[in-house]
Amino acid sequence: MKASRFLVSTLKEAPADAEVASHRLMTRAGMVKKLGAGIYTYMPMGLRVIRKVEAIVREEMNRAGAIELTMPVVQPAELWQETGRFDKMGPELLRIKDRHERDFVVQPTSEEVVTDIARQEIRSYKQLPKNFYQIQTKFRDERRPRFGLMRGREFIMKDAYSFDRDMASAKASYQVMAQAYRAAFDRFGLRYRAVAADSGAIGGDLSEEFQVIAATGEDAIVYCPDSDYAANMEKAEALAPAGARPAAAAALTKTPTPGKATCADVAELLGVPLATTVKSLVLATDLLDEAGNIKGAQVWLLLLRGDHDMNEVKVGKLPGLEGGYRFATLAEIEEHFGCKPGYLGPLNLKKPVKLVADREVAVMADWICGANEPDFHITGVNWGRDLPEPELVADLRNVVAGDPSPDGKGVLAIERGIEVGHVFYLGTKYSKAMNATFLEEDGKPRFLEMGCYGIGITRLPAAAIEQNHDERGIIWPDAIAPFTVVLCPIGMDRSEAVKAEAERLYAQLLAAGVDVILDDRNERPGAMFADWELIGVPHRLTIGDKGLKDGVLEYQHRRDAAATKVPAAEAFSFLQAKLSQAAPAASAVA
Amino acid sequence: MKASRFLVSTLKEAPADAEVASHRLMTRAGMVKKLGAGIYTYMPMGLRVIRKVEAIVREEMNRAGAIELTMPVVQPAELWQETGRFDKMGPELLRIKDRHERDFVVQPTSEEVVTDIARQEIRSYKQLPKNFYQIQTKFRDERRPRFGLMRGREFIMKDAYSFDRDMASAKASYQVMAQAYRAAFDRFGLRYRAVAADSGAIGGDLSEEFQVIAATGEDAIVYCPDSDYAANMEKAEALAPAGARPAAAAALTKTPTPGKATCADVAELLGVPLATTVKSLVLATDLLDEAGNIKGAQVWLLLLRGDHDMNEVKVGKLPGLEGGYRFATLAEIEEHFGCKPGYLGPLNLKKPVKLVADREVAVMADWICGANEPDFHITGVNWGRDLPEPELVADLRNVVAGDPSPDGKGVLAIERGIEVGHVFYLGTKYSKAMNATFLEEDGKPRFLEMGCYGIGITRLPAAAIEQNHDERGIIWPDAIAPFTVVLCPIGMDRSEAVKAEAERLYAQLLAAGVDVILDDRNERPGAMFADWELIGVPHRLTIGDKGLKDGVLEYQHRRDAAATKVPAAEAFSFLQAKLSQAAPAASAVA
Repeated sequence: MKASRFLVSTLKEAPADAEVASHRLMTRAGMVKKLGAGIYTYMPMGLRVIRKVEAIVREEMNRAGAIELTMPVVQPAELWQETGRFDKMGPELLRIKDRHERDFVVQPTSEEVVTDIARQEIRSYKQLPKNFYQIQTKFRDERRPRFGLMRGREFIMKDAYSFDRDMASAKASYQVMAQAYRAAFDRFGLRYRAVAADSGAIGGDLSEEFQVIAATGEDAIVYCPDSDYAANMEKAEALAPAGARPAAAAALTKTPTPGKATCADVAELLGVPLATTVKSLVLATDLLDEAGNIKGAQVWLLLLRGDHDMNEVKVGKLPGLEGGYRFATLAEIEEHFGCKPGYLGPLNLKKPVKLVADREVAVMADWICGANEPDFHITGVNWGRDLPEPELVADLRNVVAGDPSPDGKGVLAIERGIEVGHVFYLGTKYSKAMNATFLEEDGKPRFLEMGCYGIGITRLPAAAIEQNHDERGIIWPDAIAPFTVVLCPIGMDRSEAVKAEAERLYAQLLAAGVDVILDDRNERPGAMFADWELIGVPHRLTIGDKGLKDGVLEYQHRRDAAATKVPAAEAFSFLQAKLSQAAPAASAVA
Repeated sequence: MKASRFLVSTLKEAPADAEVASHRLMTRAGMVKKLGAGIYTYMPMGLRVIRKVEAIVREEMNRAGAIELTMPVVQPAELWQETGRFDKMGPELLRIKDRHERDFVVQPTSEEVVTDIARQEIRSYKQLPKNFYQIQTKFRDERRPRFGLMRGREFIMKDAYSFDRDMASAKASYQVMAQAYRAAFDRFGLRYRAVAADSGAIGGDLSEEFQVIAATGEDAIVYCPDSDYAANMEKAEALAPAGARPAAAAALTKTPTPGKATCADVAELLGVPLATTVKSLVLATDLLDEAGNIKGAQVWLLLLRGDHDMNEVKVGKLPGLEGGYRFATLAEIEEHFGCKPGYLGPLNLKKPVKLVADREVAVMADWICGANEPDFHITGVNWGRDLPEPELVADLRNVVAGDPSPDGKGVLAIERGIEVGHVFYLGTKYSKAMNATFLEEDGKPRFLEMGCYGIGITRLPAAAIEQNHDERGIIWPDAIAPFTVVLCPIGMDRSEAVKAEAERLYAQLLAAGVDVILDDRNERPGAMFADWELIGVPHRLTIGDKGLKDGVLEYQHRRDAAATKVPAAEAFSFLQAKLSQAAPAASAVA
């Protein structure tokens, strides 16, 4: 490509609403252009990146035996009503009425349509397994779209759906996809982790997120540097402490803590470690009568160490809370504790509650909690002595760095990540809702076992930038750079020698299948270099009159601090060696 | 590709609503699956065709210097309100409200968004010309979607938009696109015509449709077999007859024609040629007062020969009718003619009307028309003698086969076509509406000159099928076939020799870059052949035990009546020779 035939359009300033580096840099580099909140045009420079991501994903999907199709963007509501998602999904699902006032949705994902296809196409176990995928526009009407392509409303997703005859085969299909994801993510040239994720009500451990590591990531990733354990925060288990509970040593003492309504304030006031305090979280579940009306509430008291955070997913799996829970109302708290929040605890309750102790709290001695009296806490609290041993002990909390790894192989560390891919075993959730069956070898119908597998095609470039940028701009890995090589001739319009050498190298690189752009815009060197450093093309070759007189060009990788002189005659082979060091690219962008 | 890893899914029966061959065959061949009215999933077999069409179009667009980007499917209404199309477009424009009740549309085309991009990106004449294109999902909420992909609601379109500094440059950009279209259509391997089309209010002749020739086409294409004249019916000019008007010979005679309300009936009753009759078409335009309220109507009488049809586009260009017209109401007809329709004519009017004679009618003598009296016509009518010479004579009619070609090089013929592409010079219609300007060399702002260029990516396969099918199924041209070659081994599961030869040829063809599918499903030969003939793969090689014993395979082109024996050792080079005869394909489908 020659720059004069392309659109190189950089901006000095980032838009005011760009909160993260990828949004700022993609906008400044002319890769995306905002059309509305969370809605972007993929500009020529950005589209090249997206197409390379697509090509890698498509190749790995095909290699893994998945079959590409394209489902409609606008989908009739009927199928979504069959699974109940038309009502359940809330305003995130963009709804439309057509000219005949019939209901449609803009696809946020396509489980319903693909299951409808499968129930028509798959009649016999002989046709299984099958995996269908598409790379297609999706829409989610996010309440607060932001961060550019990171959390847009319209986006491109690769979504694949596997169909199997039984769980064993479904697990094998899942593993094939997980492997294909690893292959694709390896090829992107990004640092990433595949982390275990919560698989919801289905259970088992067939859910993994593919997280691109970035300090600005929204997700906390838990991993063990000494093993291959990795999970997201929702999923990562906090093991029960190894040692036994110490013996009670302190006396139960009511202590004035006026205005100190948090564990941190109390610990500071009393001059004790935060880890000696226990926080009381009060939840509630509604009790229904036979007609389904609310007849009352069950109140729950969760005890966590003062320095720990509640993990909502883990709490949602407690027996009795699987159906959903809420925080208790002030009235419910007053009724059971006789006290306002900030001074609550498990002692001196007005009405009984269901008490659950976190594993860590269950082995504490001489702890501190609220006294159920405003402006008072109690110190020296001990299980068995001051209150009964907890009936229910569970993992209620988020892990923290330094916790033991669940695989017993060291301690956990935490870093930030951006979720770009997800592989998930669905079981028969959709096939049952839509009666998607096939005939087994025994002649009887069975529900199809399903899995679903997504990659955020337009989120990936944003994640790549969050991981790889500096104060000058983007630094693309070779595999997904808009161009792999940029040729920067200095004064091409004045120097025949420069022009000839630039054109010669350009032709040679093109012929070798290198994705090269020749900057023939006749910009000043400073502006030209600034453009390409902002855009982030990894390899740059500068061709100048002065150097040519000595028979040299200048090579600079985007990560290099300075240029390297390369004999002009060797420039091509020098560059080829540099490119072969990088991860293999996908088929070239057309 | 091996069939066992793909989805080969054919149907014996076509859906009941499939009215045309392409819809029937694409459904039966498993290329599309209907999700709703006018909304289809592109199934794996169909998507391969679409991808090949896309690849050819993309290559020719890139070659012509157009730059690819991708505009959003869901577009904020604001831009559409700027041009007025949000209100003007009617129910065909699919409208959405998001969670904040803001208005959006699903793009039916993207003039607004691309003009918005251009007014931001293009500041100087130095950046011109530019041409941006996308290959992207579109939606038009057709009142009556039908014919499968031919007139769907959701479809894929390639839409390109050129921006130029002046009309001369815009015309050059238009010609570059028209040439790129010819290149793409040549490569599809279809019979097509580029026909002049009406360019609306802009005038000039910078509008061409690319019509795929098919007997079932909705459009009439007018062409001259002896020259390169070709136009659509709207545009094709009916020249004024060459000879002078004959002298009046018959006497004016009122003739009873009870119940004969059409020219055809009258001609039959009187035993005269239909071409001696004249039909009266009564139109009206509303007259407005200063406040814009309707204060009355101007009634128009158009006279056409009885065997001719009115051309609405030509009539819409008559002075006084450019702003729109309608057919007159019964009341208006009674008021001016004193008679009900069926017996109307230009004599004995109750109130004056504006009379326009078609060029053909203007040179007729002794003609027949309604008497403005129920059940009566008048014969022997003559201009000048029985009524004044017509004040306005114009081309009002559709041409018919045998009319003289407007280029004077022969007579016109008519065939049917399917519009798949359109190149169109837009002028400053959108740039003025959206104030999209650039700075000219003189430092002054000018409106961008625009053109737009569409190809119906998903309509093209349907048109290809309408042109190329037989009773057994589809016959794809090589360039857009889902697979170019199918290998059909007979009894691959029983014969090691067949299996080995099939696998050998498969590997050899794959290595040579041939898009081949090996049918390893172990279907019976009859079912296997029927599938591939329905699907329409152009080249088939059959590998059977019996033939292999004699060292031969069987080759059959989809158009061949019978197979040709080919020595197994020569099969590869034989096939290569067959493939090189076809038009060059685009880059292979991934």
